[in-house]
Amino acid sequence: MTDSNPEKTTGDAQVDQFVTVAETYTPSVNAKGKRHVVIVGGGFAGLNAARQLADAPVKVTVIDQRNHHLFAPLLYQVATAQLSPANIAQPIRGLLRGQKNASVILAQVEGVDVEGRKITLDDGSTLSYDYLMVAVGATHSYFGRDEWAPLAPGLKTLDDAVAIRSKILLAFEEAERETDPVRRAQLLTFIVIGGGPTGVEMAGAIGEIARKTLVNEFRNFDPRESRIILLEGLPRILPMFPEDLSAAAATDLGEFGVEVRTGSLVTAIDEGGVNIGDERIDAATVIWAAGVQVSPLTKALAEVAELDRAGRVQVERELHIPGRPDIFVIGDAAGVKTAEGKPVPGVAPAAMQQGRWAADNIIRALNGEAYKPFVYNDKGSLATIGRNQAVASVRGRNFSGFPAWLLWMFVHVLYLNGLANKGLVIAQWAISYFRFGRNSRLIQGEIPKKLRS
Amino acid sequence: MTDSNPEKTTGDAQVDQFVTVAETYTPSVNAKGKRHVVIVGGGFAGLNAARQLADAPVKVTVIDQRNHHLFAPLLYQVATAQLSPANIAQPIRGLLRGQKNASVILAQVEGVDVEGRKITLDDGSTLSYDYLMVAVGATHSYFGRDEWAPLAPGLKTLDDAVAIRSKILLAFEEAERETDPVRRAQLLTFIVIGGGPTGVEMAGAIGEIARKTLVNEFRNFDPRESRIILLEGLPRILPMFPEDLSAAAATDLGEFGVEVRTGSLVTAIDEGGVNIGDERIDAATVIWAAGVQVSPLTKALAEVAELDRAGRVQVERELHIPGRPDIFVIGDAAGVKTAEGKPVPGVAPAAMQQGRWAADNIIRALNGEAYKPFVYNDKGSLATIGRNQAVASVRGRNFSGFPAWLLWMFVHVLYLNGLANKGLVIAQWAISYFRFGRNSRLIQGEIPKKLRS
Repeated sequence: MTDSNPEKTTGDAQVDQFVTVAETYTPSVNAKGKRHVVIVGGGFAGLNAARQLADAPVKVTVIDQRNHHLFAPLLYQVATAQLSPANIAQPIRGLLRGQKNASVILAQVEGVDVEGRKITLDDGSTLSYDYLMVAVGATHSYFGRDEWAPLAPGLKTLDDAVAIRSKILLAFEEAERETDPVRRAQLLTFIVIGGGPTGVEMAGAIGEIARKTLVNEFRNFDPRESRIILLEGLPRILPMFPEDLSAAAATDLGEFGVEVRTGSLVTAIDEGGVNIGDERIDAATVIWAAGVQVSPLTKALAEVAELDRAGRVQVERELHIPGRPDIFVIGDAAGVKTAEGKPVPGVAPAAMQQGRWAADNIIRALNGEAYKPFVYNDKGSLATIGRNQAVASVRGRNFSGFPAWLLWMFVHVLYLNGLANKGLVIAQWAISYFRFGRNSRLIQGEIPKKLRS
Repeated sequence: MTDSNPEKTTGDAQVDQFVTVAETYTPSVNAKGKRHVVIVGGGFAGLNAARQLADAPVKVTVIDQRNHHLFAPLLYQVATAQLSPANIAQPIRGLLRGQKNASVILAQVEGVDVEGRKITLDDGSTLSYDYLMVAVGATHSYFGRDEWAPLAPGLKTLDDAVAIRSKILLAFEEAERETDPVRRAQLLTFIVIGGGPTGVEMAGAIGEIARKTLVNEFRNFDPRESRIILLEGLPRILPMFPEDLSAAAATDLGEFGVEVRTGSLVTAIDEGGVNIGDERIDAATVIWAAGVQVSPLTKALAEVAELDRAGRVQVERELHIPGRPDIFVIGDAAGVKTAEGKPVPGVAPAAMQQGRWAADNIIRALNGEAYKPFVYNDKGSLATIGRNQAVASVRGRNFSGFPAWLLWMFVHVLYLNGLANKGLVIAQWAISYFRFGRNSRLIQGEIPKKLRS
């Protein structure tokens, strides 16, 4: 990974001119002789920051409210019964086992005392830091309509994915028992709100479940009757891609049985379906794949930093809070601008790069050097639609179809943590590919006692 | 499988003399020309009954309150983070997809109208049957101390397994944050109650987690300090095995770091540990692997059949309720005697054999033949203790150690449903074997907000 060494990433020649006279901060050495770097969040940003500090003369503590690092780009495959939760998650302390200067705490952070340089954990205990890295990630935003959350669940955690999987599978189960054709049609209608990569991937996968996986499994209806509708408020899906790729994706989704409806703003959601202005669509299953909101912990920083509408902490290009060189914010929680003044997108490669860059800035400070401004190495965008179909926009090259699909698989396996998980994921993809099976069609948790009540 | 053809299973020559003048029952053909066999429960007994009826001139309906058939003998491996839930579960309707005369309903059965030959489902609807097979399985019994259930969870479903996995992993996480050595010792004490195969397998696996998997992952304690205690009320563990194998298993468990305490009847359980008479053992994690109780549905049959203390329905040797040749009870829910008058054990092979036998009896009746009494083909007993160690008692041969362990693995993979699952389980076992890793160390679900409150 070239970007772990910032000196080598400046493919863009104009970057150097943006190096500013950065604030920097070198704390005095404490009693134990090591500065303490506290990293809140073990996602892409936090984990990469911790690893980058492996050989630095610091003590690293990673705090997360879950015990696992999650490979979020494959979360939709858990939600659509292709992979098991454990395939895309690994214990953070397992990943850092060999790093002697790192320890891991399972806890929620409740507050930050900026002046006293300490954080408060959920049990009331405090932890002092010399450097703080806030890498708390993002969750979904319902744009102020939080009452929609239980009606249209979103997909950010493994628990979300398992719940959505159950919801999709239960709709088919209920349809098998249903005798009223109107209600059955409602049960067999699936709406995905949001035409970004997650929404496109979810819709495509539900299409494959209905048209391939479940065929011949029901006696009272044909799963191929299912309607899968992808709703997007903007004029096109996948707006981060060039227009022709958006169009290609929409065509491919159509072939997977997905109705793509752009320019469709949802105005109401209830248990029976959604409204788009005056139009009503009855659907038992509605999934939310729109909107991003940063985890609430960033509010603790509101006194010393500016937050945008989604809760992102606006940071200097050196990735720290203005005037607070001891507090870095990285990953989806950070509002960072590129050298050209464009916002760095909230994607996994950006989070990984920021984690390593912030760690390198700390190392620079400890060596008496100045912080350097973050240089985003845009590796492009990928989104898969389903079997053999994906779109890719990589370093100015735009392509779709089978080559993009192969690239998508290659990149996702490459970045997955752990040799065992790589192997298991490849094996399950192969099984799915050759047999159209989905290996994790489990309904877990409480099943509603009276399905049809 | 020889026992699918009952004529060939009589290795014991004396069996034939027990053939009784059985009641038999052949319903008149209904309007659709097919008799309806309703099977309640998609476990080993129910699934094998359904499959045995694939070519019979009947309509088969399998009803289960879960969507999946569970390979329960490997449930402890989900609870101890070695396998994922989906590896040991397959959708029942997927398993019966190719069987044209079978349909599957996800529902709870609320009652049986024995005279009217119909069952009531959870939504109030009814379903008529010509033959009913009750294959509802068993759950754990707390011997009248149901208040122990939340304190010492048992292991019968995937949700149980995921909850126990979280409980075990959370205890280690909490120990990392704990500064009081007394409380930390309590967190690192794990008690398994019940020295049958499940208890032995659980205790051995927790020992391996503590002594191998988690080594070097914590900074504030050594997981090898953990105490794992297996409590058994009888004078020896694994009482279904010969005495020398019980002794060998106890020795092996000792080497895995498990303290085996026989003749130890638990008299109280609370959140902080257990009492054995006057003795107190502090432990944050207590797991229940003792006692079996049949699912409550059998109570609906109490008016027409005799139930034993565990709720098992006492059936004729032909596997139907006395005087009710249209109602079969099979698997763990059935109290069946062998030709020699000994109870047939509640194990997976017995359930599979009973399922096929009951199906064959229905086929006999449809052919105008009499029911035949069930012949139990005892394939022996196997229990694994951990890495390279197991005990086996197979057709009079008793052995332990590595050969028993290989046999245990072979048999369990052989009976696992689905080629994909066989491959994935073997792969994960190999990963664990060579790297002492456990691939599914996931804490799912709500994490207690204040771990140490």
